[in-house]
Amino acid sequence: MDGIRPLPAYLVQRYHGWKATQYAENRAWYRRLASEGQRPRAMVISCCDSRVHVTSIFGADQGEFFIHRNIANLVPSYEPDGNQHGTSAAVEYAVTALRVAHLIVLGHSECGGVRGCLDMCEGRAPELEEKTSFVGRWMDILRPGYERVKDAAPELVTGALEKEAVRVSLRNLMTFPFVRSSVEAEELTLHGLWTDIGEGGLEWLDPATDRFLPV
Amino acid sequence: MDGIRPLPAYLVQRYHGWKATQYAENRAWYRRLASEGQRPRAMVISCCDSRVHVTSIFGADQGEFFIHRNIANLVPSYEPDGNQHGTSAAVEYAVTALRVAHLIVLGHSECGGVRGCLDMCEGRAPELEEKTSFVGRWMDILRPGYERVKDAAPELVTGALEKEAVRVSLRNLMTFPFVRSSVEAEELTLHGLWTDIGEGGLEWLDPATDRFLPV
Amino acid sequence: MDGIRPLPAYLVQRYHGWKATQYAENRAWYRRLASEGQRPRAMVISCCDSRVHVTSIFGADQGEFFIHRNIANLVPSYEPDGNQHGTSAAVEYAVTALRVAHLIVLGHSECGGVRGCLDMCEGRAPELEEKTSFVGRWMDILRPGYERVKDAAPELVTGALEKEAVRVSLRNLMTFPFVRSSVEAEELTLHGLWTDIGEGGLEWLDPATDRFLPV
Amino acid sequence: MDGIRPLPAYLVQRYHGWKATQYAENRAWYRRLASEGQRPRAMVISCCDSRVHVTSIFGADQGEFFIHRNIANLVPSYEPDGNQHGTSAAVEYAVTALRVAHLIVLGHSECGGVRGCLDMCEGRAPELEEKTSFVGRWMDILRPGYERVKDAAPELVTGALEKEAVRVSLRNLMTFPFVRSSVEAEELTLHGLWTDIGEGGLEWLDPATDRFLPV
Repeated sequence: MDGIRPLPAYLVQRYHGWKATQYAENRAWYRRLASEGQRPRAMVISCCDSRVHVTSIFGADQGEFFIHRNIANLVPSYEPDGNQHGTSAAVEYAVTALRVAHLIVLGHSECGGVRGCLDMCEGRAPELEEKTSFVGRWMDILRPGYERVKDAAPELVTGALEKEAVRVSLRNLMTFPFVRSSVEAEELTLHGLWTDIGEGGLEWLDPATDRFLPV
Repeated sequence: MDGIRPLPAYLVQRYHGWKATQYAENRAWYRRLASEGQRPRAMVISCCDSRVHVTSIFGADQGEFFIHRNIANLVPSYEPDGNQHGTSAAVEYAVTALRVAHLIVLGHSECGGVRGCLDMCEGRAPELEEKTSFVGRWMDILRPGYERVKDAAPELVTGALEKEAVRVSLRNLMTFPFVRSSVEAEELTLHGLWTDIGEGGLEWLDPATDRFLPV
Repeated sequence: MDGIRPLPAYLVQRYHGWKATQYAENRAWYRRLASEGQRPRAMVISCCDSRVHVTSIFGADQGEFFIHRNIANLVPSYEPDGNQHGTSAAVEYAVTALRVAHLIVLGHSECGGVRGCLDMCEGRAPELEEKTSFVGRWMDILRPGYERVKDAAPELVTGALEKEAVRVSLRNLMTFPFVRSSVEAEELTLHGLWTDIGEGGLEWLDPATDRFLPV
Repeated sequence: MDGIRPLPAYLVQRYHGWKATQYAENRAWYRRLASEGQRPRAMVISCCDSRVHVTSIFGADQGEFFIHRNIANLVPSYEPDGNQHGTSAAVEYAVTALRVAHLIVLGHSECGGVRGCLDMCEGRAPELEEKTSFVGRWMDILRPGYERVKDAAPELVTGALEKEAVRVSLRNLMTFPFVRSSVEAEELTLHGLWTDIGEGGLEWLDPATDRFLPV
């Protein structure tokens, strides 16, 4: 096949290092995870951004979190139209097959996807408005959020929209019948988080006030 | 909003532990990552499975990998139809905005999504064939791969299909014009990997033989 | 010019091997590093000794570490006297131009420079005391360290002085105004390490106890 | 001591990986290197730049190269004035104590130090002309080289100055009596190299023509 190359040597070396240490020390557990299947307690939906590491923030190890990562940690609304919906498939699998107890949406500061959405909504990014822009069409999910924050002060609007991305996703999650019924049966709880990359901060969405508060 | 609850205490506690140790020790770097933006060398497309940890396998830290995770590490083919394609958006962002040098598809053993696809293709999972099944429709991406492995011995067919998922994704990646042109300009290389969860093995797709070989 | 010869054939051959393999597999990344500039996370100050390989110990690849290597990994104190100070220039460039997040001083066992310093301080190396001895004058930086370890048992004094070289360098680093201000602004952290060449050990300087502990 | 922190966790993990693999596989050799001392065949003087890896270019392993790295791979001329000259100390140790057979000066493209020198010589960097600028004073070594390239076309002058840095260093090396006598005794050869970071090229200084030619 075209374009396929061997793994860069530095990754080969790092892998062998992991195999000889962390894997070797946990072989028994990894074998059980393989033979008995995963049983994660939570699903996390976070951004692809290389600076967001849910596993390090939560000191996570193999088997704990079912993690879906996409641009700007967005969940579209329920649309059973027979088309391919990767995020909806991940949510469906986590809730109906794995029956996770928590569904966590983790937003973050300096989000390039959210900034793109802002530029698009304010007319500064015509290329994102084209039909062929995958990032643009994906960020359409966040357009309703823009309507709610657009009157914020300019220096606050990006952060507000990042948090709105979390709210939009949580709201859309509840449009999925299997999410709603699991929540109503008290088999599932939803959680909204936002992390500040530079300061290492973490805020959670308080449903009573609809505000983000420091954890 | 419905269903939203505070973060479970065990995660709150782990976060505070991370903040006081790993974050504190790396504050300077995280602040630079926040102020100067990310510049990841590679994008990794892996499965949501809680047992697959690309960051630990490659000893990765904040800033190194742009990571998209979905069910069965699948990439659909290029379809600029104006609909929402989360995976395509992530690939577009990584290749055109971040200009990553490597695009790695990481498959794995015991993949529940792949097993579901197999059941569906062999008629044992009618529920996945329904139009409303997000997992089923998502796994349709892998159907061409099933055709190529269906005559394998029963004990080998699942593993073969897991590796076929990597091949299908790599092939579909090359249908994206911006991926193809970056590959042709020698600004991007593609890599196919498959990891054995229980044994900690790692195999790479050798384009010369089209086979997976131990790293 | 006098004395200049073609590169020995064994190095020519190794270079061509690297070009055809590691370079070829990483061309995209190297080109980006060339066009966008380096952004190393850390500066490492280590010894010229051929047995000390920071890049292999830390699985490093192109772009990760800004590396200054001199005899005995020494940093002189801040002396803005208009003379040529190569080590101070390297530190200045790393901290003020590249804004590295970590500054690591890496000492090592069997250090010839440190042994020379010991011989000189104990009167066994009059040739190093001459004004014209570059090694002797360079090792003068470590003389204050000798005062602190001279009463150690004979079989321990060399190792103690090697570790003292790390402490002296760290202390001298803090005499540079730009290092101190970056540390105080929490934009830079200092780290002291010592590696045992034969045993592959690595120890870090614990500031709480001022002792070296295994990593 | 101020500012000292534990080693970042990702480096701890990578070190343990190295210890369990590369070290473990070479323990016998590393122990011999420790007990019998180093015996490197060549000294390399290269830049601190994180993109220049002499060890990977030459497929080097522990024990092969005595490596001094400073800003812009410069060697000052012989000045036995009793002051601290780190580069001169490294050269003295390599030639008189280790008696290396080759002395290689390795320059490179996109050199920030050389660019700074150019800016300084052309009046665009007054801050580098100050007495307190360590980088500026260090780059004074290259000023004679600027005189020889200043009339080159603007798009060629930086590359020409990078190569001049190699020539200046080689010329200065021959002002050291112990270098000259070793060269004359045919116990030492000098070599000038320049590497193109993005293209992976390597050129050597041909003394017959005083030009750099592809290796």
